[in-house]
Amino acid sequence: MKSIIETGFKATVRVKVRFSEVDSMAVVWHGNYIHFFEDAREAFGEKYGITYMDVFANGFYTPLVSVHCDYKSPLRYGDEALVEIVYFDTLAAKIIFKYNISNLTTGNLAATGETVQVFLSVNDNALSLGIPPFFEKWKQKMGLK
Amino acid sequence: MKSIIETGFKATVRVKVRFSEVDSMAVVWHGNYIHFFEDAREAFGEKYGITYMDVFANGFYTPLVSVHCDYKSPLRYGDEALVEIVYFDTLAAKIIFKYNISNLTTGNLAATGETVQVFLSVNDNALSLGIPPFFEKWKQKMGLK
Amino acid sequence: MKSIIETGFKATVRVKVRFSEVDSMAVVWHGNYIHFFEDAREAFGEKYGITYMDVFANGFYTPLVSVHCDYKSPLRYGDEALVEIVYFDTLAAKIIFKYNISNLTTGNLAATGETVQVFLSVNDNALSLGIPPFFEKWKQKMGLK
Amino acid sequence: MKSIIETGFKATVRVKVRFSEVDSMAVVWHGNYIHFFEDAREAFGEKYGITYMDVFANGFYTPLVSVHCDYKSPLRYGDEALVEIVYFDTLAAKIIFKYNISNLTTGNLAATGETVQVFLSVNDNALSLGIPPFFEKWKQKMGLK
Repeated sequence: MKSIIETGFKATVRVKVRFSEVDSMAVVWHGNYIHFFEDAREAFGEKYGITYMDVFANGFYTPLVSVHCDYKSPLRYGDEALVEIVYFDTLAAKIIFKYNISNLTTGNLAATGETVQVFLSVNDNALSLGIPPFFEKWKQKMGLK
Repeated sequence: MKSIIETGFKATVRVKVRFSEVDSMAVVWHGNYIHFFEDAREAFGEKYGITYMDVFANGFYTPLVSVHCDYKSPLRYGDEALVEIVYFDTLAAKIIFKYNISNLTTGNLAATGETVQVFLSVNDNALSLGIPPFFEKWKQKMGLK
Repeated sequence: MKSIIETGFKATVRVKVRFSEVDSMAVVWHGNYIHFFEDAREAFGEKYGITYMDVFANGFYTPLVSVHCDYKSPLRYGDEALVEIVYFDTLAAKIIFKYNISNLTTGNLAATGETVQVFLSVNDNALSLGIPPFFEKWKQKMGLK
Repeated sequence: MKSIIETGFKATVRVKVRFSEVDSMAVVWHGNYIHFFEDAREAFGEKYGITYMDVFANGFYTPLVSVHCDYKSPLRYGDEALVEIVYFDTLAAKIIFKYNISNLTTGNLAATGETVQVFLSVNDNALSLGIPPFFEKWKQKMGLK
């Protein structure tokens, strides 16, 4: 049984490597890719009406429970990168995104990654075991399930 | 009329330069000194009973209204630095700190700086024009005025 | 004698406040404004042919010797800001920029600031007491002096 | 065949959560855990004579090829955390560390993680397919293999 399904819902965001993001090896410090993933989630949220603000307005936070990043080739100061985010659907009360970061300056794949988020109630900080109604509605609007 | 008085109340904190803090010139990126100032304010707050938490418990935030930093000599990866913070007293509803950062590895002065903070009410975000009573009490306890 | 002259050479860059940039008061942490200044210097460098890369290609670094920021009103998560950078000319071997950050979401002025940079030789890390020839040429091209 | 072996070589580092590390939910922003992992690698390197500096002196960089973090419970402003790093041995030309972050203030496990690093020659940026001699020597000194 396949529990995670690529939906084809994607968004992209371009980032230009900042001077303050590179380390003494003149490549982007590995921890900064986590910011690029967040930039992509923002872009996805805006494109599909599911920003942190939308989620919060429905009484939830969606903190990360895991992040993974595989580094493929470096990004250097001045390089432009394209961060692609894809939504993967699951029956669990989770939000799963996968990421591809391409270095537009070199044409190389720079990194891939994945994040998993859960739903926490703003009221009592309780973990939501089921998918919250607002997110079920969003899925339906997206034609999922 | 001298409106700002050095009190002699100081605290120090040692920081070791992290790999992620240096830039492609292999020196600490200038923006990271702002973190060192904050580390020193923390140390001061703990030493003298006036942490962000104490301030918050009294119904106030103390956001910065200005920061200044003069860079004197570089800090490199692995260098140890001593950040000294000194409290300057004023009759205004402000908190003024001055900072000296010494590079313990080279013996050089690395930077000096200053921050100014004001009092904002947690309730209504209103700027406090007078010194809040809890801070007057703290000053008295410190023997100021 | 007026030693610093506003040139009218400016650049602007729009930034959208990232989730990771705000603190527990839900406003941009004060240290992050230093990144916005850097984004603006980048934009200026690209517009007028004087990026870090151009400078480096001419054998120089231009590290900051001072930064100042006055905070006027908060930037919140999701707010858009316009960072304006203006070049101020001087006879000294320095690069002076002033900054205005406007909150486009609220219409308020968010912050103003200033940075001063000097010229360091890549070869020997020596401070340049005079204005390096490549920078004099740039000034002439810009019609300064 | 078990290719990754827990060696029992560990180091720990205490970190106190900085104000600038927490987000608008008042918990440490997930990306900042990557800094804690780096702090632990530093501590390990110093304890066992294998810092970035030592590695560099032998002609190598050891960039990360992957990072993983599982978030278990939040770290809040002012919390103290203990970051434990354990070295896992492998026959591959890789450096594998696993991490446990405990929240000393609450007694809860805050996060676990893993990083994988490879060897890049400083001279030509070439990936080392075999384990470099200096690292074999370090392993022998540690009694591995």
